[in-house]
Amino acid sequence: MTREGVVEAGARHAGTPGGGASLVRPGAGSIGRLTPLGAEQVRISGGFWGERQATNRARTIPHGFDRLQATGTLGNLRLAAGMGGKYAALTDSSGAQFPFLDTDVYKWLEAVGWELGHGADPEMAAMADEAIAIIAGAQRDDGYINSFVQVLGGGAPFKDLEWGHELYCIGHLIQAAIAWQRTLGDGRLLEIAMRAADAVNLALGPRGRDGIDGHPEIEMALVELWRETGERRYLTLATRQIELRGRGLLGEGRFGPAYWQDHMPVREAPTVAGHAVRQLYLDAGAVDVAVATGDRPLLAAVIRRWTDMVATRAYVTGGLGSRHRDEAFGDPYELPPDRAYAETCAAIASVMLSWRLLLATGEARFADQIERTAFNGLLSGLSLDGTHFFYVNPLQRRSSRSATTHGDGARQPWYPCACCPPNLMRFLASWEQYLATADDAGIQVHQYATSGIEATVRGGTVRLAVETEYPWSGRVVVRVLDAPGAEWALSLRVPPGSTASTVAVNDGTATRADRVARLDRSWVAGDTVTLDLALQATVTPSDRRIDATRGCVVLERGPIVYAIETADLSSGTHVEDGEVNPGVTPVPEPRDDLAPAMVGLALPGVVHRPGSPSAEALPLRAIPYYAWANRRADAMRVWIPATTRSARDRDGGPGDPGVPD
Amino acid sequence: MTREGVVEAGARHAGTPGGGASLVRPGAGSIGRLTPLGAEQVRISGGFWGERQATNRARTIPHGFDRLQATGTLGNLRLAAGMGGKYAALTDSSGAQFPFLDTDVYKWLEAVGWELGHGADPEMAAMADEAIAIIAGAQRDDGYINSFVQVLGGGAPFKDLEWGHELYCIGHLIQAAIAWQRTLGDGRLLEIAMRAADAVNLALGPRGRDGIDGHPEIEMALVELWRETGERRYLTLATRQIELRGRGLLGEGRFGPAYWQDHMPVREAPTVAGHAVRQLYLDAGAVDVAVATGDRPLLAAVIRRWTDMVATRAYVTGGLGSRHRDEAFGDPYELPPDRAYAETCAAIASVMLSWRLLLATGEARFADQIERTAFNGLLSGLSLDGTHFFYVNPLQRRSSRSATTHGDGARQPWYPCACCPPNLMRFLASWEQYLATADDAGIQVHQYATSGIEATVRGGTVRLAVETEYPWSGRVVVRVLDAPGAEWALSLRVPPGSTASTVAVNDGTATRADRVARLDRSWVAGDTVTLDLALQATVTPSDRRIDATRGCVVLERGPIVYAIETADLSSGTHVEDGEVNPGVTPVPEPRDDLAPAMVGLALPGVVHRPGSPSAEALPLRAIPYYAWANRRADAMRVWIPATTRSARDRDGGPGDPGVPD
Repeated sequence: MTREGVVEAGARHAGTPGGGASLVRPGAGSIGRLTPLGAEQVRISGGFWGERQATNRARTIPHGFDRLQATGTLGNLRLAAGMGGKYAALTDSSGAQFPFLDTDVYKWLEAVGWELGHGADPEMAAMADEAIAIIAGAQRDDGYINSFVQVLGGGAPFKDLEWGHELYCIGHLIQAAIAWQRTLGDGRLLEIAMRAADAVNLALGPRGRDGIDGHPEIEMALVELWRETGERRYLTLATRQIELRGRGLLGEGRFGPAYWQDHMPVREAPTVAGHAVRQLYLDAGAVDVAVATGDRPLLAAVIRRWTDMVATRAYVTGGLGSRHRDEAFGDPYELPPDRAYAETCAAIASVMLSWRLLLATGEARFADQIERTAFNGLLSGLSLDGTHFFYVNPLQRRSSRSATTHGDGARQPWYPCACCPPNLMRFLASWEQYLATADDAGIQVHQYATSGIEATVRGGTVRLAVETEYPWSGRVVVRVLDAPGAEWALSLRVPPGSTASTVAVNDGTATRADRVARLDRSWVAGDTVTLDLALQATVTPSDRRIDATRGCVVLERGPIVYAIETADLSSGTHVEDGEVNPGVTPVPEPRDDLAPAMVGLALPGVVHRPGSPSAEALPLRAIPYYAWANRRADAMRVWIPATTRSARDRDGGPGDPGVPD
Repeated sequence: MTREGVVEAGARHAGTPGGGASLVRPGAGSIGRLTPLGAEQVRISGGFWGERQATNRARTIPHGFDRLQATGTLGNLRLAAGMGGKYAALTDSSGAQFPFLDTDVYKWLEAVGWELGHGADPEMAAMADEAIAIIAGAQRDDGYINSFVQVLGGGAPFKDLEWGHELYCIGHLIQAAIAWQRTLGDGRLLEIAMRAADAVNLALGPRGRDGIDGHPEIEMALVELWRETGERRYLTLATRQIELRGRGLLGEGRFGPAYWQDHMPVREAPTVAGHAVRQLYLDAGAVDVAVATGDRPLLAAVIRRWTDMVATRAYVTGGLGSRHRDEAFGDPYELPPDRAYAETCAAIASVMLSWRLLLATGEARFADQIERTAFNGLLSGLSLDGTHFFYVNPLQRRSSRSATTHGDGARQPWYPCACCPPNLMRFLASWEQYLATADDAGIQVHQYATSGIEATVRGGTVRLAVETEYPWSGRVVVRVLDAPGAEWALSLRVPPGSTASTVAVNDGTATRADRVARLDRSWVAGDTVTLDLALQATVTPSDRRIDATRGCVVLERGPIVYAIETADLSSGTHVEDGEVNPGVTPVPEPRDDLAPAMVGLALPGVVHRPGSPSAEALPLRAIPYYAWANRRADAMRVWIPATTRSARDRDGGPGDPGVPD
């Protein structure tokens, strides 16, 4: 491809076909409650998320292309395309080669697709053109594409559905293709993706054999492909994948059938189980199928699982997955902060699932969970500079952790299994699509960012400008730039927990805003809504059912979960030393040393020095959890021990007979 | 072999050569402090451990042979011997085949060796003769033996030192051989073992290449082989294995070099690290080498690691290993009760290490840890009926654990990786050897069991009879049956924590006994010592540095750690419901329903019912931790939440805004 080809691709954006360049665009006959607004309808222009998107575009995505080249991941596809080279076999902890590396390229391409929609970037487009040409070259005449199978696996497709990730790879290819088609009207990847999906359909569709992928993902991609193309076979194939699951096709595997959600049919399983990302991608696909086919019992099953998951298996950061061994959900209330797995991809998958449930039901609780996850357990996966990542997102790292602890140290520029970094890229590049929706009544704003919103309401165009310093400040100002003559409702979500939030229209009286502020009005250009979200700093004890954090408190302010880390402690003091009286009120303080406008918390703590009879004062400074490990990688904790009135369990030192462990 | 051959083997016992059929028999020039007493010098005749040994002999060992046959493990060696059959490839969680199954046969044979020393058993001996004949047939002319390499691996030895476990297997073969030689004077296995060790020496000895096994074990076996045969090359090879470790020969592996203790030289590593069983076997071998070669710095390094391990990484049960993923030690104070790995083999290995350190130093703390481990985290691996096992020994299992939690459910009759069951067999069959030692001054009794003890002291024979209902009763009566004329010291360990223990000689006044009661006297036959160990039931808060059990208490009485389990709760009540006031005193109560003479604890607890404003009384009954999961396998917990005076962290129910997780 030439530079001209690139510019042309960028130019295509102006001619985007109707329908909206959105995630989860509803298809005909859908039962969904809300309509998403696409990337051309919502545009983030500044503030917290503007900075994160700008960093993603300027630094993270170019860094990703560099890594795809340096690690050989792109080279593997090049090799499959007959362009020469040597296969870069990255391996898992058992020494087995990763068969799913192609997806890193696809997720990166999806991110580029959304980003080019934000504005042309010839350099980035050139990188993408190179990757697309390689993918086109790698695809076989029969539509099949998988560099691992083609180069190392002998070429016979769909022989290892349990571990081969072939459908998973094609799912990500489809999602990239849809981003390019919707945003840019560029159908190069879509043609490749359709042919690949047809290869799957031939082997495993209604006329093929019964088979499902060990790693769900293709289900939601296939529904989206149906939405995009109108070709019903893709929806049928997605439905078939959902319905065949839970019938033992995958066998026991390494970790039992629940690991890949094959222990019970998708519409019957009462709780989430097994590998967190697999469960969440599966349930996202199940919602898509349910909404597309009007299958309310299937939708209800997913909502039951989500409700139980958030109540019993989710970290305060929104992180999901309590176990390292099988990257899995734990038992209810099994939420160790130190050994949390809380994979970045699981946080992203959780947002994807919650978003689908929000569209399907309109219920604010799904947007609440998106917010908690996005600001905490998801963003923690990305360094402030945009080029270092966490795969695992624990809520605690000890000062005394030894050099012998492997694999959960500092942020890394990439991972041998690099699923998370490009997943972050595509998430951030499309974040504006999670902010607002429309329905017959009007517009709903679910997440707050400085942005422009445009939608068709009551037959006319609504244009809004949102300005906010959220999450650092609670004030959100929505200005109406254009509105049709008719009355319509502007609905603003009020995050839970704050009882002092208010909303005012123009110069009117501020009234209490609770959960959702719905303002029905014949809006006119120039109207202004001022939403003041109360952002009290809170100190909240852990739920008594969670053994691993019993007797501890968490600091929060607005949607932000806080943590203390070594860099903010005086020399000789460790994060393990501090205790906090649950009755104190933390004081917000600027943390421009970490990022512009960032708000930290200062609060009094106490420390019990070994051998000292009484506690000493220990001032503590907490920073947003997502921002930890951006200075020297050292100790951190989210849950801080609460001071107790009883001295009984406190002053035993090492060797004390009262200290059995 | 014929039945006659078996009887002959049993008969050989009478003619055991001098030196004692003991574990860790000291060699010439050793620097050890205490001399072990062998199986022919200490004999358990009843009480708690008498019952456990009888069950091992009558049920567990025969069950083991049945399982070795049924799983194909013995058949694999038969196949290597050219006797036909099909290889039974058991696999690990990544689908890789286990290469170390031969050790199950060797450990079982070691158990039989010690047991035949306790008394002839033609049926058991016939099983062993069959296994020994198969092993003899499987050994190659060059001395090498490993059914996996010979049958599946192409026959080239020592090609996969990282994961092949070949030296590990030969180490267990050597240990079995020594049991048979020392106990029965039966050298059949010893000849095989020496030839196998010579094959290792040829490949990896001083004239071979530099190479160490990914799984330490052979080091201590080689030292013992030197002690038994006097052949110095085995000690040299053991020393070489210790010295080559920590120099990167094994590479990064799946989990980093600390996983197999190859991150730092053995004499430098400051703390235990990585896979717990590997570390503990390695350090046991390092002590053996240090004692045999007079290498005090090496001994000091192991003691440093042991001391730190017991202070920061050991469970109250003595269990070791905090992580499932790599079966590894955690960071300091990382001791989750629910996700404890605490492998049965690690508990056994810990006893083996502590025993060597006790012999080397004479310090009671090592015997303390042996006792804590043996009565709790080790015995928990074996069902009361002797035929079901735990591989993993958590300190908590939740009521609400779902059917989707894989692999840590009920006790199993065997495991695909069956390292633990035959390890328990050999441990119990040789437990009498851990009870007492001798030195120039006299006899030291470290563990209490109804038993006979015989040793040579001051040139004469001492014979003692010990009677006790320990651990259920604290009274231990030691009668002198024979004694030389000279004065010598009887030393009795007093477990830590009890300040009210007393000791009395004959009709003398009872005096306070603290840590070690040393009684110097010209003992005569008929003298009686009465040791009264105080066994107060205690309620002890968790060390405040352990995050995972903060705010909880543990119940103990004497050496026994207690647990509550579902079977003792009224219907509708769960082990998660109970809280305990740290000020209560539990009341001992008989638990003959579980085992004769067993003592449980009864204590008042409270429960907070959802929606109820105040706590209700909840009587709790605790049983010895090791005896859990012998009724229906359900929930259990060792650490019980303590009641707190603050109502703040207590009455939030589900959905309460104060409950973030």
